[in-house]
Amino acid sequence: MCSALPFVVGPGMRRDGTTRFRDSQGEPLHDFLAVSSFSQYTVVDVNQVVKVDPAVPPKLACLLGCGAGTGVGAAWRLAKVQPGSSVVIFGLGAVGLSVAQGAKMCGAAKIIGVDLNPDKEELGKKFGVTDFVNPSKLGESPLSQQVIIEMTGGGADYCFECIGVASVMTEAFRSAKQGNGKTVILGLEKDGKPISLPSIEFLFGKCVMGSLFGGIKPKTDIPILAKKCMSKELELEKLITHEVGLQEINTAFDLLLQGKSLRCIIWMDKLAA
Amino acid sequence: MCSALPFVVGPGMRRDGTTRFRDSQGEPLHDFLAVSSFSQYTVVDVNQVVKVDPAVPPKLACLLGCGAGTGVGAAWRLAKVQPGSSVVIFGLGAVGLSVAQGAKMCGAAKIIGVDLNPDKEELGKKFGVTDFVNPSKLGESPLSQQVIIEMTGGGADYCFECIGVASVMTEAFRSAKQGNGKTVILGLEKDGKPISLPSIEFLFGKCVMGSLFGGIKPKTDIPILAKKCMSKELELEKLITHEVGLQEINTAFDLLLQGKSLRCIIWMDKLAA
Repeated sequence: MCSALPFVVGPGMRRDGTTRFRDSQGEPLHDFLAVSSFSQYTVVDVNQVVKVDPAVPPKLACLLGCGAGTGVGAAWRLAKVQPGSSVVIFGLGAVGLSVAQGAKMCGAAKIIGVDLNPDKEELGKKFGVTDFVNPSKLGESPLSQQVIIEMTGGGADYCFECIGVASVMTEAFRSAKQGNGKTVILGLEKDGKPISLPSIEFLFGKCVMGSLFGGIKPKTDIPILAKKCMSKELELEKLITHEVGLQEINTAFDLLLQGKSLRCIIWMDKLAA
Repeated sequence: MCSALPFVVGPGMRRDGTTRFRDSQGEPLHDFLAVSSFSQYTVVDVNQVVKVDPAVPPKLACLLGCGAGTGVGAAWRLAKVQPGSSVVIFGLGAVGLSVAQGAKMCGAAKIIGVDLNPDKEELGKKFGVTDFVNPSKLGESPLSQQVIIEMTGGGADYCFECIGVASVMTEAFRSAKQGNGKTVILGLEKDGKPISLPSIEFLFGKCVMGSLFGGIKPKTDIPILAKKCMSKELELEKLITHEVGLQEINTAFDLLLQGKSLRCIIWMDKLAA
């Protein structure tokens, strides 16, 4: 979703780790993750407002505030994917596909996508996915983690969970390489279940991290990503499956609920071109 | 335990993440974590042998191979404790007390020790612990995590688990600050239980890491730590509670089992001075 103004309301975590704003009387302001949408007026901390080069089309700029920025940032800034490394992405939705773009941008050699939807194999390739695993096609016995450990010669350097299922988070952790494999949690667990992790694997050097917005710093990183979009180093526009006017906002939600859209641009001030 | 030779058999993880050596036929050599003890002969990878300045007393040098090196390294190299930060250490045994020394060396402002043994309060102070929490004295309702969140104004920057109990690992994670709190697992879970972690806290920027040897690189870091011991920046000799000759090795084990020793030096070639 986007405003046609050349400003982006940026990712939400403040440097001190809090997520809520307070007014001058100390009362909390009812933002959502410091990024408020669907309101006539909104109060945004100056730290969250980023000026973007007016040459960047609004429909590209708006992707960077959340979702695409989260995925790219998680590979680039949070996990710091290294050239030549192996990456596994559980869940090829908009966030997972953006992780693939970020990993490709960082020079990952192998980017394995894991998804139950067979259509994601072809789609993933457009975003940099080099290998695809469909857990539903592995039969009863092998878990995707076993297949991934085999494909990567001992475990992946980076595993991203972009779905929000506790058991998949465990699987991502187990798929990571001993020594220094990183697991990155980006999905919000749907049922609020805790993750269960074998603690001994931490002793062998694995780590788990996570982020709501990919660990990017809006003021510095959004302009960098916008530039990379303009130069086609990042091809985030491939995430845009639909564009509608504000009066069609319910259509946009239906498309999302039906799993038909990755990102639907809602134009506030005009109809889709 | 120590050899009187000016060499230290260093921490075990190899750079490629494997922990086992193989002979020229590819058969595994039966080392334990790449550091073998209690054997007449041992094969050690050249990467694991570190020359230490002969001026360093062997009884200090031998502490750096494991235990003390693990604790100091975990604060210094793995967690990268920052000046002015808050640190919580669950379990003030030799590893936990070494974490305290490492955190102090890194300039931590608040170092909270958590232990069920009341004697650890005074002992901890000698190693840099500034505050002490005894969970058994908190009564029924408050958990140590609630107390720690209060003491640190929202959660600690770094939480170290040095016991090996899954529920304490969870407690350490919950005691860490939202935004960027790091939890470091150093204890080996006694019953092999998995850790249960609320996944949403990863999304708010927490992370979990761990290590068997504190993330130090033997060749470069052991000489640095040896120097810090000589200059008294690190006072690891306070860990040495007993010294015995090889013929008293069973006494050394008894002291360990009875919880009476932190580190007992076993002299291979002479009696205790």
